[in-house]
Amino acid sequence: MTTTGLLRTISGVGTDRGRGGYSRHGFAKAELELRDWFIAEAGWCGLDVEVDRNSNIWAWWGDPGPDAVVTGSHLDSVPGGGAFDGPLGVVSALAAVEAMRSKGFQPAKPLAVVVFAEEEGGRFGVPCLGSRLLTGSLDPAAALGLTDNSGVTLADAAETAGFDPAAFGRDTEALSRIGCFIELHVEQGRGLIELDAPVGVASSIMAHGRWRFRFTGEGNHAGATPIADRRDPMLPASQLVLAARRAATGGARATVGRLVPNPGGTNVIASTVDVWLDARAENDASTRDLVEKITSAATVAAADEGCAVTVTEESYGDTVIFDPALRDDLSRMLGGVPALPTGAGHDAGVLAAHVPAAMLFVRNPTGVSHAPAEHAEPADCEAGAVALASVLEHLARSS
Amino acid sequence: MTTTGLLRTISGVGTDRGRGGYSRHGFAKAELELRDWFIAEAGWCGLDVEVDRNSNIWAWWGDPGPDAVVTGSHLDSVPGGGAFDGPLGVVSALAAVEAMRSKGFQPAKPLAVVVFAEEEGGRFGVPCLGSRLLTGSLDPAAALGLTDNSGVTLADAAETAGFDPAAFGRDTEALSRIGCFIELHVEQGRGLIELDAPVGVASSIMAHGRWRFRFTGEGNHAGATPIADRRDPMLPASQLVLAARRAATGGARATVGRLVPNPGGTNVIASTVDVWLDARAENDASTRDLVEKITSAATVAAADEGCAVTVTEESYGDTVIFDPALRDDLSRMLGGVPALPTGAGHDAGVLAAHVPAAMLFVRNPTGVSHAPAEHAEPADCEAGAVALASVLEHLARSS
Repeated sequence: MTTTGLLRTISGVGTDRGRGGYSRHGFAKAELELRDWFIAEAGWCGLDVEVDRNSNIWAWWGDPGPDAVVTGSHLDSVPGGGAFDGPLGVVSALAAVEAMRSKGFQPAKPLAVVVFAEEEGGRFGVPCLGSRLLTGSLDPAAALGLTDNSGVTLADAAETAGFDPAAFGRDTEALSRIGCFIELHVEQGRGLIELDAPVGVASSIMAHGRWRFRFTGEGNHAGATPIADRRDPMLPASQLVLAARRAATGGARATVGRLVPNPGGTNVIASTVDVWLDARAENDASTRDLVEKITSAATVAAADEGCAVTVTEESYGDTVIFDPALRDDLSRMLGGVPALPTGAGHDAGVLAAHVPAAMLFVRNPTGVSHAPAEHAEPADCEAGAVALASVLEHLARSS
Repeated sequence: MTTTGLLRTISGVGTDRGRGGYSRHGFAKAELELRDWFIAEAGWCGLDVEVDRNSNIWAWWGDPGPDAVVTGSHLDSVPGGGAFDGPLGVVSALAAVEAMRSKGFQPAKPLAVVVFAEEEGGRFGVPCLGSRLLTGSLDPAAALGLTDNSGVTLADAAETAGFDPAAFGRDTEALSRIGCFIELHVEQGRGLIELDAPVGVASSIMAHGRWRFRFTGEGNHAGATPIADRRDPMLPASQLVLAARRAATGGARATVGRLVPNPGGTNVIASTVDVWLDARAENDASTRDLVEKITSAATVAAADEGCAVTVTEESYGDTVIFDPALRDDLSRMLGGVPALPTGAGHDAGVLAAHVPAAMLFVRNPTGVSHAPAEHAEPADCEAGAVALASVLEHLARSS
């Protein structure tokens, strides 16, 4: 089936009427349904499925073993996300396997399609949860205590979904099998539009992380409390949003897309406000500097309002420079497609610290991602799958 | 039973573990449980219960009829509210009835204890819903279309709870029975602390209303979208919060306690942000001026970010000056207790446009309301109930 055809088989799963787009979060109903769908589709492609200790799914062509050529992506989404971010990489992998099989190709190396768990961190806050647990870059004890908006822990959610949270953590065996990892992904910007190319390869990922600021003031009555008597945490929270914008200069990015006043009543001065800062910059130093500037502004604003503020780093990943030899190899193999950087994090970025990793990007005609307007034309999706098949063939053939 | 004893009989109903305090919203589980509790308690006091067309509950001492002396308040709360706002007026009314009965008092006029529905607007956004519907100051067709956070309409919620939404609207019969209305309420500020008085009477309520601002930008990826390409509605939303504070001068109050970015993902630039403004000032002109200033700042901030903004007035009530003769009468009757204004809205304020209405306030040692720290000492609660009984006796006796 074509990539677009495969995407259409899941177009009804996890639609979010309130937000628009899709909400498919780790270990929740829609994501579990997509896991079942993937296992069935992998079966149609003649692949053997196994689920690793961290709930990532592996579909093998040939016996699982060392030096495997691995491709794949994720099936979860941000809240109200698009149809392509994640699933395009998975369906392209399946389409590439079908294409290789139908032409009679026999890989010399083991080949696997992987689906990583909770890549967006949409439910438990930490992005690339499955690949971070697998590689050991996230402490499983800390991870299992993460909670979703309803207070459910990752441990409970995983267990309810039928996984064993006690087994979560660095999986040396799974990691040791990966010879290289190639992730195909819809582009999340306008790079390929400007380059007039349907497909490109990734050069780097910006350093990025998430910080939670909790401002604590005094909850009170919105009508009966004189202005002079207020300690309203919405004031420093709003100053943080503006400070983030001011501080994001020179290509850096700082965003507040999630802000929760508690208790959240119209006629109630909030007692606390939680603000999540997503900050990214070229390298570790510039990212730390960006967050420091914003934290400093938030601290001053909190003090001005008589509020307290605490800051928690929820996740952080340093700049990723993808393996230059592999990147150039892929570009050459695909007739000289362009290489381009991205501000978006990916499982390939997490794996890049451990194995040679690369990414293929497919053109996005809206330039929009993490929103329903995210798109990729069917012809570009097919070009992506053909490119992926050609890369996989090359890598699984050479010794 | 004492007022504090009565409050303790409902201290387990509608507790909110996440926010702290109580969340008891109109036609939801906790509020329905409190309605049943009130009906049972009214029975213990020998009162006859009827529910009017707008779901307000009336407990009668004597045949329902014209020139009735009515007291009462509400049982619903803001999200994460205190134990006193609303219920104190209801339990004080019951305690006053018990006290009058036990001393053998026979009212010459009908006397009723009323519980008004959804006074806080915590679920459907419009405060004093029950009294506004009864008096006709809220169009029932518009009201029935109001939705809660889950998209449930007032019509559906009322019907599910066993009420007939088609009957909602101005209730001339219920209104014509009210000779006067006296609402006892916990004070929501520090007035009685400063006056060193356990009980006072209300002089006025500030003009107040609620406005919803919807900022629309473009949802996109928090990492992959360059700052220059963004139309992020969190920026003008934050500017509104700061503008509200700047504009609230000379005793006016402007608050944002509820702000909802959509979709609300950490790594997602919001596509829309809804901000609720609670604004109050001395009179109609100053309140309109306050909201105009904030709207103007929000409009400029939205344009600066390439965002659209729409403003919806969700509710509005002009300044209330309580009946001066009744106010002075009550104060005199209670040995010269002080009169004081409030910034908080009440059902008594809605009824004041139709019948002589008055309020008794009970001292709040924290000065805090709409939050778990709201409090009233048992001795002050008893003083309030004794004062209410004395006022009711006086009013129900005189011809």
